[in-house]
Amino acid sequence: MVILFGFIASIFALLYSALLIFNITSRPAGSAKMIEISDAIKKGANAYLFRQYKTLLPIVVILSAVLFFAFNVTTAIAFILGAFLSGLAGFIGMNISVRANVRTAEAGKKDLKSALDVAFKGGSVTGLVVAGLALLGVTSLFYFTQDVAMTIGFGFGASLISLFMRVGGGIYTKAADVGADLVGKVEKGIPEDDPRNPAVIADNVGDNVGDCAGMAADLFESYAVTLIAAMLLGMVFGSNAVLFPLTIGAAAIVASVIGTFFVRLDNSHNIWKALYKGIIATVIISAILFFLISYYLFQNLNIFYASLVGLAVTLIISYITEFYTARDRKAVREIAEASKTGAGTNIISGLALGLRSTYPTVLLIIAAIFASYYFAGVYGIAIAALGMLSVTGMIVAVDSYGPITDNAGGIAEMAGLPEKVRKTTDALDAVGNTTKAVTKGFAIGAAALAALSLFAAYAEATHLQAIDVLKVNVVIGLFAGGAVTFLFSSLLMRAVGRAAFSIVEEVRRQFKTIKGLMQGKAKPDYEKCVDITTRAALKELIVPGVLAVASPLAVGFLLGVEALGGMLAGSIVTGLLLAITMTTAGAAWDNAKKYIEEGNLGGKGSDAHKAAVIGDTVGDPAKDTAGPALNPLIKVLNMIALLFAGLIAAHSLL
Amino acid sequence: MVILFGFIASIFALLYSALLIFNITSRPAGSAKMIEISDAIKKGANAYLFRQYKTLLPIVVILSAVLFFAFNVTTAIAFILGAFLSGLAGFIGMNISVRANVRTAEAGKKDLKSALDVAFKGGSVTGLVVAGLALLGVTSLFYFTQDVAMTIGFGFGASLISLFMRVGGGIYTKAADVGADLVGKVEKGIPEDDPRNPAVIADNVGDNVGDCAGMAADLFESYAVTLIAAMLLGMVFGSNAVLFPLTIGAAAIVASVIGTFFVRLDNSHNIWKALYKGIIATVIISAILFFLISYYLFQNLNIFYASLVGLAVTLIISYITEFYTARDRKAVREIAEASKTGAGTNIISGLALGLRSTYPTVLLIIAAIFASYYFAGVYGIAIAALGMLSVTGMIVAVDSYGPITDNAGGIAEMAGLPEKVRKTTDALDAVGNTTKAVTKGFAIGAAALAALSLFAAYAEATHLQAIDVLKVNVVIGLFAGGAVTFLFSSLLMRAVGRAAFSIVEEVRRQFKTIKGLMQGKAKPDYEKCVDITTRAALKELIVPGVLAVASPLAVGFLLGVEALGGMLAGSIVTGLLLAITMTTAGAAWDNAKKYIEEGNLGGKGSDAHKAAVIGDTVGDPAKDTAGPALNPLIKVLNMIALLFAGLIAAHSLL
Repeated sequence: MVILFGFIASIFALLYSALLIFNITSRPAGSAKMIEISDAIKKGANAYLFRQYKTLLPIVVILSAVLFFAFNVTTAIAFILGAFLSGLAGFIGMNISVRANVRTAEAGKKDLKSALDVAFKGGSVTGLVVAGLALLGVTSLFYFTQDVAMTIGFGFGASLISLFMRVGGGIYTKAADVGADLVGKVEKGIPEDDPRNPAVIADNVGDNVGDCAGMAADLFESYAVTLIAAMLLGMVFGSNAVLFPLTIGAAAIVASVIGTFFVRLDNSHNIWKALYKGIIATVIISAILFFLISYYLFQNLNIFYASLVGLAVTLIISYITEFYTARDRKAVREIAEASKTGAGTNIISGLALGLRSTYPTVLLIIAAIFASYYFAGVYGIAIAALGMLSVTGMIVAVDSYGPITDNAGGIAEMAGLPEKVRKTTDALDAVGNTTKAVTKGFAIGAAALAALSLFAAYAEATHLQAIDVLKVNVVIGLFAGGAVTFLFSSLLMRAVGRAAFSIVEEVRRQFKTIKGLMQGKAKPDYEKCVDITTRAALKELIVPGVLAVASPLAVGFLLGVEALGGMLAGSIVTGLLLAITMTTAGAAWDNAKKYIEEGNLGGKGSDAHKAAVIGDTVGDPAKDTAGPALNPLIKVLNMIALLFAGLIAAHSLL
Repeated sequence: MVILFGFIASIFALLYSALLIFNITSRPAGSAKMIEISDAIKKGANAYLFRQYKTLLPIVVILSAVLFFAFNVTTAIAFILGAFLSGLAGFIGMNISVRANVRTAEAGKKDLKSALDVAFKGGSVTGLVVAGLALLGVTSLFYFTQDVAMTIGFGFGASLISLFMRVGGGIYTKAADVGADLVGKVEKGIPEDDPRNPAVIADNVGDNVGDCAGMAADLFESYAVTLIAAMLLGMVFGSNAVLFPLTIGAAAIVASVIGTFFVRLDNSHNIWKALYKGIIATVIISAILFFLISYYLFQNLNIFYASLVGLAVTLIISYITEFYTARDRKAVREIAEASKTGAGTNIISGLALGLRSTYPTVLLIIAAIFASYYFAGVYGIAIAALGMLSVTGMIVAVDSYGPITDNAGGIAEMAGLPEKVRKTTDALDAVGNTTKAVTKGFAIGAAALAALSLFAAYAEATHLQAIDVLKVNVVIGLFAGGAVTFLFSSLLMRAVGRAAFSIVEEVRRQFKTIKGLMQGKAKPDYEKCVDITTRAALKELIVPGVLAVASPLAVGFLLGVEALGGMLAGSIVTGLLLAITMTTAGAAWDNAKKYIEEGNLGGKGSDAHKAAVIGDTVGDPAKDTAGPALNPLIKVLNMIALLFAGLIAAHSLL
């Protein structure tokens, strides 16, 4: 009976999304020029996605064959379903995003409120589709197989897609961004989003494939694997404990839908406040529903308290991120001040900020682990993770709003819309930077808790009594897990550089060979840039992908299940620390630059500004590529360990 | 009987040092001008050391009182002895360093060979005093108490001094360096080591207190605590296994003394080759002696093999460091190339290099752990660590040679010696950069293995059967250990910035208020700068010091011995990774800049050079302050845990 809630809520969310899609697409898309630009972005984004899916297809086919022979047909199907639904969520989200962008620009002609309305509705579609499809997939699999273990393959499928979407999307977005800026802004001196820049469409595509599709896949994965881990860990406590995760997932989706109605601009015209009201409403409604469900299923409130811990983490982690990255805070001001003595001190200051920002986040995670364990043991930790992730729909909605407004601004610029429109989209975009940072903090914390839940499920699956750090193979595993996260980050930092380089060369070539381009008399070859970026990003997927999949298998089969446990623990701890350092430092550098651009410390063009631009350049691949990609990395490592736990236990060398 | 070797070898090393000191000080110190400069450096260095000791005195007094009441009088005395001998080693080393510098400059008037001879003899004094005093201290304590547990206090004393010397010295050296360069080179356009620069003496003092005294204290600690840990772990195997560490320590000191005779310049005039011959000779002689001792004490070679693993790590780790940081290698060239597109890409490239350089080092450490454990269990790991550290005398000798030649160059510049002398000291100094990087790699690897040995000893002391990562308090400990290393690094990065700022202000003030300074008609107030740097560095000691001492006690007493074990493991893994990242990236940035300065990619003054200078600025506090300070941090955490193991087990909350 209870399982029906999972179906009802997820289908409700999907239907509501369909309604929103209809609402958005029936709005005016503006002038022919605007539609033309929007179509170019749409085309580029879809070209990237299709090529990405095409690249992944053989991998999915091979892996499902492996799963079929190693396990059974259900696991193989679950895997395909997980990969497919994750891909579908990204596809839908991105396609609504590239339609909402031009309509947001058009609505900007009227007023801020209308523009916010379209942009947030667009974001809501992505959010609800992510949560809805993930919940629907896990619920269906469990309903038809009546075996939680059969859902693990689903999680693995989601993991794999998430890794590739985050890595590929992250490289794409930053390579295009750097490529467009380096030649356009720096060498040619033309403004951002100028239509003469051949990489301008690729840059706008990047916002969608990186920030929208990449983030969607990441949270789809966190949500799905945490559901699965919680259900696995609930098995020892009977069927209600297995169903509870699905039920609170269902409740929180309903809460998210209701929450979207609270996003309204009041007279203060404070956009962030409007969005935050939606988050708060979702959290409060979820808490009430969790209370009722817990009481109904368990007749006691311990598990409710554990879920409450997760909801609290959602709120607190966004405060911490904001504290370190908001433009009006001391931390960012300190970096801006340090820019006065040059780029060197700007970088040192930012690195120091990133490193120390790990501390409060880790304390929060520690407190959450401690409290949720206190209430309900290891199952409690998974429930806390799920409590946090249950509001994914709302969080993704707030996040996906970002690239839509960013794109809207670009379209306004390129189509030469009146100054007023650009002002409106700029206001929306500024808040988009905050929401981006806040969601990143959420995604990192969620990934850490999701990975921990998987880690606990792994330990149960292998029947390990202990993972003993006093054993030499576990120590070795711990070191290996730490080293993998560092190496992975390094690979991505370099990949962005290489990919950006190939775009810079192409943009330079176009400026040199296309006559009349600088004078605006000839059109650049946008598609060529989109194509090069796509190829470059996909080429860079391979090595990090192999590292993520092969290293846990190598450690597991060579050194045994306990060593692999050590590796998982090592990767979670260092992955969390590195991810926080990189994303916080990156966001702070970005905002320090913007703070100076607002006219402080000499403003645009001053020496301090030049130094801050360098800091921002360093922060870009850190915050948008390497840092976020650590989330799927630690989940993939744990997911693979969980999936292959039995085989490793039976066949490892040690 | 066997224990006599420890006495004989350490006293032999100290007597030989005395001979070297006599040899060095009886050489000509050059002109009155040179002596004047050298005296200023000497005065400044001693002023810093005395102030540092004075600051530490109350801490030592309070802590020895705590140890007296918590344990017994022997532990308190052992603690004082450890702190005193560590301080003494630094004091002697630094004082010979500030005497050898001017004599190296003077010998440079003759030829390269003579200059190398003085500089390396000066370094040898520090090396032999460090190894000799550490071995003498541990041997005496064990001889008089016949109880290994009584030596733990000695290790704690050494740890504490090491932490403060590394942190204080590291902040001092970089703050003075940045302060001197920023105003002198950048703002006023006068060359490095120009006597008109008020911070020039402080800068030279910094080389001694940071690179010489700081490194000496670090390796004194690693050496002492590894000896102690190995003896503790040997207890279960009987008295020979307890004496073995002291015996191979004694053997390796003799080997180091013999090794110094192999440091001779051949016709190729390759200085690094001359130094490397000394290292190789020491390693080979040590290996032969270890073989004889193992066979004599155990009649089998398993323990010998474990010690051989350590010696192998010494050689391989220097190769890895060299691979990533040497000027003629691909890795550094890549950073130099990246400088062509600006400071941003230079920084990204350097960060990526630092992050990925962790991988081979971690693989090496993993292999060493695996092999030494295979041969002799946990005891084998400690023996491997000791095998590595046994050649400390030689390694410190090669390292301390660096600041001596650096100073010699400064004196030659300030005293206006002929161009030929400066050329000689420049050649010596260039190799000093390689030896510095190589020793840093050694110190990091040694610290990791030393900390692991302490960790194993901690587990034995607490009678823990397991440190189980599946337990929630251990997971929390793991996160806490990781977070402490990140926060600690951040504190040090900021501290350098703050301290440098106060020196910059003072140097600017002097240039503004002292008339005729720029024209060379008036003398700057060197002492004022030395004084300000000293104060600033010591002020910054407090917070990181408290963090290092209080955090393991907090975790231990709140969450119990097993959680503390998790914290230790977490700190070792992340501390190792962060330390490698920071020091390798820093050295690579430095050498990328030097590579460009040699005339490549546009040479000095080009845009690429400007970008590389920024990279070097970022690398400075990373490689000379934060990175190296992580070594004592992870040892201090483990040492405190070991020392308080019994109390924590009896009184912790959980």
